Amino acid sequence: MNKPSAIVVGVGAEQGLGAALCRRFARAGHHVLVAGRTPARLETVVAGIAAAGGSAEAVVADATREEDVARLFARAAAPGEGIAPVDLVVFNAGNNRHVPFLELEAALIEEFWRVGCLAGFLVGREAARLMAPLGRGTILFTGASASLRGKPGFAHFAAAKAGLRMVAQSMAREFGPAGLHVAHVVIDGGIAGERLLSRLPDLARDRGEDGLLAIDAIAETYWQIHRQPRSAWTHETDLRPFKETF
Amino acid sequence: MNKPSAIVVGVGAEQGLGAALCRRFARAGHHVLVAGRTPARLETVVAGIAAAGGSAEAVVADATREEDVARLFARAAAPGEGIAPVDLVVFNAGNNRHVPFLELEAALIEEFWRVGCLAGFLVGREAARLMAPLGRGTILFTGASASLRGKPGFAHFAAAKAGLRMVAQSMAREFGPAGLHVAHVVIDGGIAGERLLSRLPDLARDRGEDGLLAIDAIAETYWQIHRQPRSAWTHETDLRPFKETF
Amino acid sequence: MNKPSAIVVGVGAEQGLGAALCRRFARAGHHVLVAGRTPARLETVVAGIAAAGGSAEAVVADATREEDVARLFARAAAPGEGIAPVDLVVFNAGNNRHVPFLELEAALIEEFWRVGCLAGFLVGREAARLMAPLGRGTILFTGASASLRGKPGFAHFAAAKAGLRMVAQSMAREFGPAGLHVAHVVIDGGIAGERLLSRLPDLARDRGEDGLLAIDAIAETYWQIHRQPRSAWTHETDLRPFKETF
Amino acid sequence: MNKPSAIVVGVGAEQGLGAALCRRFARAGHHVLVAGRTPARLETVVAGIAAAGGSAEAVVADATREEDVARLFARAAAPGEGIAPVDLVVFNAGNNRHVPFLELEAALIEEFWRVGCLAGFLVGREAARLMAPLGRGTILFTGASASLRGKPGFAHFAAAKAGLRMVAQSMAREFGPAGLHVAHVVIDGGIAGERLLSRLPDLARDRGEDGLLAIDAIAETYWQIHRQPRSAWTHETDLRPFKETF
Repeated sequence: MNKPSAIVVGVGAEQGLGAALCRRFARAGHHVLVAGRTPARLETVVAGIAAAGGSAEAVVADATREEDVARLFARAAAPGEGIAPVDLVVFNAGNNRHVPFLELEAALIEEFWRVGCLAGFLVGREAARLMAPLGRGTILFTGASASLRGKPGFAHFAAAKAGLRMVAQSMAREFGPAGLHVAHVVIDGGIAGERLLSRLPDLARDRGEDGLLAIDAIAETYWQIHRQPRSAWTHETDLRPFKETF
Repeated sequence: MNKPSAIVVGVGAEQGLGAALCRRFARAGHHVLVAGRTPARLETVVAGIAAAGGSAEAVVADATREEDVARLFARAAAPGEGIAPVDLVVFNAGNNRHVPFLELEAALIEEFWRVGCLAGFLVGREAARLMAPLGRGTILFTGASASLRGKPGFAHFAAAKAGLRMVAQSMAREFGPAGLHVAHVVIDGGIAGERLLSRLPDLARDRGEDGLLAIDAIAETYWQIHRQPRSAWTHETDLRPFKETF
Repeated sequence: MNKPSAIVVGVGAEQGLGAALCRRFARAGHHVLVAGRTPARLETVVAGIAAAGGSAEAVVADATREEDVARLFARAAAPGEGIAPVDLVVFNAGNNRHVPFLELEAALIEEFWRVGCLAGFLVGREAARLMAPLGRGTILFTGASASLRGKPGFAHFAAAKAGLRMVAQSMAREFGPAGLHVAHVVIDGGIAGERLLSRLPDLARDRGEDGLLAIDAIAETYWQIHRQPRSAWTHETDLRPFKETF
Repeated sequence: MNKPSAIVVGVGAEQGLGAALCRRFARAGHHVLVAGRTPARLETVVAGIAAAGGSAEAVVADATREEDVARLFARAAAPGEGIAPVDLVVFNAGNNRHVPFLELEAALIEEFWRVGCLAGFLVGREAARLMAPLGRGTILFTGASASLRGKPGFAHFAAAKAGLRMVAQSMAREFGPAGLHVAHVVIDGGIAGERLLSRLPDLARDRGEDGLLAIDAIAETYWQIHRQPRSAWTHETDLRPFKETF
């Protein structure tokens, strides 16, 4: 029997959500295509998985570039020997930053849209092209509470994330009946990953124990959504630390 | 070490969601208080759990009656030897029926509210009284898409379920920071349980394979929500069959 | 030509939203049935309308009592000479109070439901029975942001208001195509009426100029919704003071 | 006293929503800057307003181009003699088309985003730059039900409109307390304007009387939102024909 395979798009730091997702899927027996922009970071994640007895490979790709996404999925469609075509795809790229509305440049709102929405569309479309004909597969999008609610200083982020949510929702309605499970995870709170902690080193302490979202805990929920049989699928779920105000 | 324990309120037919939840929790090692209105049905569920090597007991209770709910939680607070106080409570009572708006009687809208909302409040309040001081525990509410959307012929049902959703959401915001995990599961579609199938015997066939929500699949999602560590809690999630229009 | 007529249910203080609605409709030429529980208060409002050259009558009614609502609509169906059957109905009853969840009594959550949801259902049903056969008419419900969001200390209020919202939404979907305009107004903020100001005399000053919702401003929006032609109806709108956080 | 002035961005056909908005504002006494891409169309609208005794001028502008939007607002900031700086801005550009998800090109999703979201951001930002320092003014965005709900074949449209909605919501929260009224109108249904009727000439007949949104009726609601005093502002409202399913 062939080993199942997965793609995670948007893998950066070893202690980031993307990497945690790769490790979770590898631990469950998937061969993982570890996709991101920075080769060295991808290799670190791949090496970690291999060291733990798992199987993974790095694919350098900028998800905002159509040709990169196409190349990634070409690889996923023709995996190595003993590996089945991908049945689990996660779009996890994104960024965030506070910018007062009057200081927002057109270039910045476009950049956020390219990374947060267009890239998600490209990954979702290629995933659907590959998996819809097979009548099975899961596509998970990392969303944000900003997709539901625009706040001062975050118009650019909210606009991108709301667009991504609509891509996910449109896909779910279009491909669900064909057997493709599309879900959108609303991350509501700070993620205890390298990106946030390196910028705000005191944040984890200030928030107290479990005051930020643990990356392995998030990854577990993604995995459980993938495991759902098609008789009871989640399309949208939220995740937040217990102390988070909402 | 004491065995953990759980309560499921709203257990009816052996092939119903309430019973499936009891079995799932028992299989995970919980002692289960099986609560519902019909003794014979509860005993059947308890016997099934015992036969499978699990631990359960029946508690006859009408969740719309405050004294019944109080009695149920008194039992949960002082469980038998070797059993820990309850850490997982599910409110699963409910009913549904299409009634054109102009034919709705005040008595019917009240009945739906008592079963669908007041009972949930009573169970939620007693659960919080018991578990909040312990700084841990999970309370899960079985919701419906009608909690988000009122449709012709279902004003009574939607009003009750929307009320229940607000009880759950208010509780989550009030008790989350204290360590109590409150979640609301939006069931969107027909449940392949005895209640629906006995009324509409052709429905399962008409909907095709996996066209209705399998009770064990729903129960698995409830269990996974309970398992989430407090750093990444779900408050609301939806569940629907893959072919369901939404 | 007969004078059009309107009903406002939930009229209390002269400086309250109910009374402001009555005055706005009377000013537009409607004969107004001023309905509430306290005869003296209704008579004050009626006298004020008459003094301004308008037409109104008091109908003592507790909207939580089915017989009172029936009597009110019997009067509306057979108005005095020169007055057309009602074409505009507002349900404006309600109350609010902070109560910590663990201190909520079943009787209180029931009281809030009776006033906030059941009464709205009774008024909506009688309004639809009267106006749907005529293929025209407007029913407006005074809602609250709590109908969309449950907060600590307001589970009882949110549950009632969310139920009312679902009644309104179900009615809109069921009766809209028949020509009945059903709308739900989400009041988000404190109303600068006698009820609030008598309880919290410093509030208006603390909030600053226009920091609370002016009753005449709210009433104007209700009136504009009633005026909409059926080619462009609002079902839901929100209203808040400019400084209100949301 | 100076004449107030308004801008409508996204004016095309004489029988279109943009033109109807211009006429409504002119009728209320505003001088109107009629902005769109096609000079001849703008001139027709301006001439119609002049013929009816109103005041207007055409400004050729492609709202997706930053320099065009800047030029438009430079004109608005320094209007002719006897005209006050703009206090009412409407963003009304947009388009729509069904495209199956797998046939969506990156260029198309980008085009929809530029017209439906980026242009709205540019107009909103310049409007805020001009009016926020004055502590008054209204900015209205023409939204769509797709901003709330992604459907098969409309991922590109929904993503753009959801993004626009978040721009509007972020602006409302950021600028409301400064006295700037930002509102988002959810158009839910076909607009009985030249664009739709020229493409689908049978649609108006098929939908029956008042089965499509009349442009003057929509314009009236925009005007009423602008008239709201700051003590009771609408941020979001929906508009649909009475027979529209929702």
